[in-house]
Amino acid sequence: MKAFDPQRLKALIRDIRDYPVKGVIFRDLTPIFRDPVVFKEVIDELYLRTRDKRIDAVASIEARGFIVGAPLAIKLNAGFVPLRKKGKLPWKKREITYQLEYGLETIEVHEDAVTNGTRVLIVDDLLATGGTASSAAKLLESMGAEIVGFAFIVELAYLRGREKLKGYDVISLVVYE
Amino acid sequence: MKAFDPQRLKALIRDIRDYPVKGVIFRDLTPIFRDPVVFKEVIDELYLRTRDKRIDAVASIEARGFIVGAPLAIKLNAGFVPLRKKGKLPWKKREITYQLEYGLETIEVHEDAVTNGTRVLIVDDLLATGGTASSAAKLLESMGAEIVGFAFIVELAYLRGREKLKGYDVISLVVYE
Repeated sequence: MKAFDPQRLKALIRDIRDYPVKGVIFRDLTPIFRDPVVFKEVIDELYLRTRDKRIDAVASIEARGFIVGAPLAIKLNAGFVPLRKKGKLPWKKREITYQLEYGLETIEVHEDAVTNGTRVLIVDDLLATGGTASSAAKLLESMGAEIVGFAFIVELAYLRGREKLKGYDVISLVVYE
Repeated sequence: MKAFDPQRLKALIRDIRDYPVKGVIFRDLTPIFRDPVVFKEVIDELYLRTRDKRIDAVASIEARGFIVGAPLAIKLNAGFVPLRKKGKLPWKKREITYQLEYGLETIEVHEDAVTNGTRVLIVDDLLATGGTASSAAKLLESMGAEIVGFAFIVELAYLRGREKLKGYDVISLVVYE
């Protein structure tokens, strides 16, 4: 098997200037998902880097996180736990509210999504400031889960999200310095 | 390999009465996703029923559709195309607006998501009235794609969504009459 090549991923990622607001470069990963070979390579690589963690469940954040987390869960023989924006889950829930750049955000999870000692990998497409990821960890830990790490396709290192996830194992396939 | 058992799926699905509005029973599939064995069985079964269709891309509807469509795309060696609610995709888009029970809804897709002759399977977690699914097909067909069928975990047959998808191959694993 040939080594994984982050440059090949970077070549596919579409930089969109001034989206969603002026001064921000949005990294659009849809060209990766659309490419059957590269999409599979991404999931395979995340699998190789996480398979030794004895993961019970992959938890992902709505909505792009589901595109990465659900296939990885299948590959790891793990369950899949959706973390959703407020008001989207139909049953008994726990929630956490946190500060994002543009205001407050709330994410929710079903009360039976994890139990005491469930080993959870948190997966999203992209690590930016780390606010959502660290809040997801706090929420699941408050329910008894053990967070075994975080996995992302892209990491925007200049936003220092990794500092918010200090003490956890953080995997990313492509880093923008 | 043992035969797929829809009853086992049904036993896991959580019926939530009067959600999102009075008189509606919401079928909550999160207990299926949370169960590593059953989640994998679901994806494997959808794969078995679709693998002969020469599928280039799986297109899924935000957000729960991603949980089913992305793993199925990986398994089929197909690309994955997200169809999103208005304002969520960052690049050049096509859109379609359609009538739902409670008002108008718009879904969007990136302009380069499919091309002439791309063979697309449309995947969602649940077939209800079929309004979203048939609009997704219209949108992708207007861009040159060929819709090779639809795949769902659950079909609410009493809402007659299948009639809206007449002429297409429609697969569902669990049917509520």
